[in-house]
Amino acid sequence: MPNPPIVIDVPFRVRYAETDAQQIVHHSSYVIYFEEARSEYIRQRGISYAEMEKVGYFMVVTDITIRYHQAARYDNLLMVRVWIEEQRSRSITFGYEVLNAETSEKLATGTSKHLFVNHDGSVVKIPETWHNWIS
Amino acid sequence: MPNPPIVIDVPFRVRYAETDAQQIVHHSSYVIYFEEARSEYIRQRGISYAEMEKVGYFMVVTDITIRYHQAARYDNLLMVRVWIEEQRSRSITFGYEVLNAETSEKLATGTSKHLFVNHDGSVVKIPETWHNWIS
Amino acid sequence: MPNPPIVIDVPFRVRYAETDAQQIVHHSSYVIYFEEARSEYIRQRGISYAEMEKVGYFMVVTDITIRYHQAARYDNLLMVRVWIEEQRSRSITFGYEVLNAETSEKLATGTSKHLFVNHDGSVVKIPETWHNWIS
Amino acid sequence: MPNPPIVIDVPFRVRYAETDAQQIVHHSSYVIYFEEARSEYIRQRGISYAEMEKVGYFMVVTDITIRYHQAARYDNLLMVRVWIEEQRSRSITFGYEVLNAETSEKLATGTSKHLFVNHDGSVVKIPETWHNWIS
Repeated sequence: MPNPPIVIDVPFRVRYAETDAQQIVHHSSYVIYFEEARSEYIRQRGISYAEMEKVGYFMVVTDITIRYHQAARYDNLLMVRVWIEEQRSRSITFGYEVLNAETSEKLATGTSKHLFVNHDGSVVKIPETWHNWIS
Repeated sequence: MPNPPIVIDVPFRVRYAETDAQQIVHHSSYVIYFEEARSEYIRQRGISYAEMEKVGYFMVVTDITIRYHQAARYDNLLMVRVWIEEQRSRSITFGYEVLNAETSEKLATGTSKHLFVNHDGSVVKIPETWHNWIS
Repeated sequence: MPNPPIVIDVPFRVRYAETDAQQIVHHSSYVIYFEEARSEYIRQRGISYAEMEKVGYFMVVTDITIRYHQAARYDNLLMVRVWIEEQRSRSITFGYEVLNAETSEKLATGTSKHLFVNHDGSVVKIPETWHNWIS
Repeated sequence: MPNPPIVIDVPFRVRYAETDAQQIVHHSSYVIYFEEARSEYIRQRGISYAEMEKVGYFMVVTDITIRYHQAARYDNLLMVRVWIEEQRSRSITFGYEVLNAETSEKLATGTSKHLFVNHDGSVVKIPETWHNWIS
């Protein structure tokens, strides 16, 4: 992991379908924002996750943590900041911060940990090509 | 298609995540109720859709229509009625009616049309085994 | 309705969570693309739907139709074209076309019809300010 | 908190829309299983969450943690076990375990922490009536 880590900012406009009867963004939606933010991170670092699956590597999620600070609402413009929190030979942990893009208010923070598996579902080392762009 | 058609009733409890900021069930949720209702129809008719995919048949959706009559809310108990509206050699159309299970009020009606495809994505005739349970 | 209608193009990157076990975009996701495309249409025409709800007008969906032509997959870049198909004193119908933005292949077409209601849920005429930007 | 805690088992049939292109249940779906499991916990303990919101109390989620052990697939029957992990004057933490109902294999574990707020969004003490059924 570089020091400081590379941080990618990914904007999201809150969708109506992501809200709930409390008139705020449903807490499960952040899991999806995290996922798309790390997809964009990977895309910007030179290899798309779609390509990765095509060559037989799959990232599976082993842990999710989210702390919710403030609610977001329909039509809000959010900024999700994503970086690599920790990297090991067989796992990778992403860190996230969700901000209101207009007020810079912090809405949520979290992490997701992943293993790499092959087509058989066996855990494998992180592929070399990935190793390069990560470091 | 039998006359009258076989109708299966499938209950759904509205989930919080299915609501939106209008404090009603989001209109996309009915597409999912329809899907699970027809899964249950197929399951009760003797073959699960999961089994079908295992032997290489996939139902793909070609058309959806939904008319929304009344809104549903969190915690409401719904009843989705499902039947086969029309069957042809290569397509099948399901009909649906969504009721409030407690008041019997009609909430929505709709249809979904499907083709059967094999692993290559080629359209195929409806498998014999299916043909039997349908008729 | 202008002749020809104003058409707004709204891009969507397919999210992983929008796919299903057939490895294509789940058919319910198009309902959400439609919704966000018409939100963007409204936003670009000078009034956000969020503003509209604040002043007490709500658009409720009364009908959805979707025809699926080709499947979309994770990471695909989609373009949703949206326009006003029909406008009456108390209802409005949007038309949609979903394309693969890279190949221009047509993936889906559809419509959504809406009524305007006030805080009490009573159907009302389309507000004047809207009437202006629509025409 | 009683010792041992009251544990409620809530069954879920995996929906097709909950799966993703890895042909497993998308990891965000567990957040929704947790939510509906705790709704059922509350319902069985004598007060529905829908009733609670009607009298002006809202539970907001402040923290989610999930560990994923094994994947679930379409049509699998799951059992979500839910209990109160910790209760304080102003917060409550639920614990969860997701099992494959047929094999008893452990699929996921997790927690959700909640504050109670009133209509103004101010944090309040857990209402008396709740306090009673919790203990």
